[in-house]
Amino acid sequence: MRGTVIHAPWDIRLEDLPDPTITEPTDAVVRTVATCVCGSDLWRYRGIADVPKPTPIGHEYVGVVEAVGDGVTTVKPGQFVVGGFLTSDNTCALCKAGAQANCQNGTGYDGCQAELIRVQNADGTLIATPERPEEAMIPSILALSDVMCTGWHVAVSADVQRGAPSLWWATGRSGLSGVLAASQLGAERVIAMSRHEDRQRIARDFGATNIVAERGDEGVERVKELTDGLGADAVLECVGTQDSVAQALSSARPGAMVGWVGVPHVSDLPQEHMFWKNVGLRGGPAPVRAYLPDLLDRVWNGHIEPGKVFDLALPLDQVAEGYAAMDERRAIKTFLRP
Amino acid sequence: MRGTVIHAPWDIRLEDLPDPTITEPTDAVVRTVATCVCGSDLWRYRGIADVPKPTPIGHEYVGVVEAVGDGVTTVKPGQFVVGGFLTSDNTCALCKAGAQANCQNGTGYDGCQAELIRVQNADGTLIATPERPEEAMIPSILALSDVMCTGWHVAVSADVQRGAPSLWWATGRSGLSGVLAASQLGAERVIAMSRHEDRQRIARDFGATNIVAERGDEGVERVKELTDGLGADAVLECVGTQDSVAQALSSARPGAMVGWVGVPHVSDLPQEHMFWKNVGLRGGPAPVRAYLPDLLDRVWNGHIEPGKVFDLALPLDQVAEGYAAMDERRAIKTFLRP
Repeated sequence: MRGTVIHAPWDIRLEDLPDPTITEPTDAVVRTVATCVCGSDLWRYRGIADVPKPTPIGHEYVGVVEAVGDGVTTVKPGQFVVGGFLTSDNTCALCKAGAQANCQNGTGYDGCQAELIRVQNADGTLIATPERPEEAMIPSILALSDVMCTGWHVAVSADVQRGAPSLWWATGRSGLSGVLAASQLGAERVIAMSRHEDRQRIARDFGATNIVAERGDEGVERVKELTDGLGADAVLECVGTQDSVAQALSSARPGAMVGWVGVPHVSDLPQEHMFWKNVGLRGGPAPVRAYLPDLLDRVWNGHIEPGKVFDLALPLDQVAEGYAAMDERRAIKTFLRP
Repeated sequence: MRGTVIHAPWDIRLEDLPDPTITEPTDAVVRTVATCVCGSDLWRYRGIADVPKPTPIGHEYVGVVEAVGDGVTTVKPGQFVVGGFLTSDNTCALCKAGAQANCQNGTGYDGCQAELIRVQNADGTLIATPERPEEAMIPSILALSDVMCTGWHVAVSADVQRGAPSLWWATGRSGLSGVLAASQLGAERVIAMSRHEDRQRIARDFGATNIVAERGDEGVERVKELTDGLGADAVLECVGTQDSVAQALSSARPGAMVGWVGVPHVSDLPQEHMFWKNVGLRGGPAPVRAYLPDLLDRVWNGHIEPGKVFDLALPLDQVAEGYAAMDERRAIKTFLRP
């Protein structure tokens, strides 16, 4: 089968790799119908995270079950499925507590920008759709594999509540999903921060009521103006730089929560914006399986279309161009079709 | 009137001071029936926080209303009242959002270890008891002025939920109140950490089911053993040193919340125990007025006795000894009677 391998920064190749097989009785093998490139893949692509050796890459997918191990009971060959960016058994104490991203038996993948994937913990990871979805719905189901659940997680972590204004901080794919999540969770006003017209348009589609194009201190000032000088009731931090986290915390009103997701690279948490203001910080990798059943229902019933974040669709053999387009900001998120 | 003044580290004096008066129409003057020494007062007593000039000190009290300004409508002279360690108008946007400690018009006090106090924002700060309480109940009502509400706040901040085990981290007066709060909020198991027998006894009285006497890494190991290797579902950090905050965060199970209260002196928040474990951190000064009506009911109806944290009662003219006893750990918390 063909799968994507990162060899070094800016060096992405589609290669012939051995077909994955059932190794444990709890495994499934899935033939991908669609996969995509994640903002977090760019850390290695840009050389910010190490690439010590050529490594299969990608962690988002939808597809059709090809085979299952003897211990798998909830999905079967032929079903259309979606799974999260980490596998989870959904039965351990941490999964039961809703922390499926920290499952005691959880694993990653050996690259999902590929034609075939081995999915460990298949019962606790995969959810089958009622039937094979129409083509137009596939991007939105694929978005549940990471970006939409990550956006949901940041909104839940920030305690977004019905009626409360909420701030989506800065650009980013999970930020757009966070806007959609905040709006679905009932936030009355959703302030989205972006300088880019294409992202502003999607943010509005997703429920943003105000757009702030300014950045840094100026951006914080604009948020304060929009919230009677108080700051936002809930802040969604989806970028993860030192500056963006500081700005998110300082944009929060006293007593508010800041959610954070993505892969933050922060040297020093700015506690001066936290304790005395009673501002909390919570988040991490999204427990996809916790949100997947509800969000799949919302997609299936046409209530949300998180797949709108994909603005470039390519065949899998152009995966390298898919990375380049995101790196150069010619695309928000690249959809790949094997 | 006589009031306590801190002149310098280890120099506490009871002095003749001018009687406070009604300055704003929203003021009240309260004649104290009891006051006390707070752990946070010790920061200045021990020279850790500055004492640039002689300053009236103390911020906890119960008493009888002596006079009110023209704008005060909810309390009247002769009523027995309790108020929080900061005043709040209880009507601004932040108070309405439950962040009364960050009230837009909030103030402190000009010293409450005194015979008379000026209470600004009287309507939003003071609550009158149905009648004058019996002597035995006065310490428990006084505890609502700070230590018990602070303990409640740390438990609420840590999302203590019915049935969940919960950890009270290390010694401290608010930690003891946190044990009581966690137990009232329905935590099935409450692990209290203390080396001191007197505090262990109160912790058990307040609902602790397990006591861990070890500190540091060894203490974290004991908590892990008691929680199937996972860590606590909710962690209450009431000490505020670099080490105690790090240990609290590392004792939390993935997905848990850590509450923090007191006056933390932390140089660097240990984020390595936060993001990848989905562990959140929230807290700050307690919004006393948010909790006061409910907690006063619980005291008045005999459901809780938070006044048990007082293990030394002195007349106000021995206030200096009250500080010394807490500083030298001969007392947990000193009750003062004017």
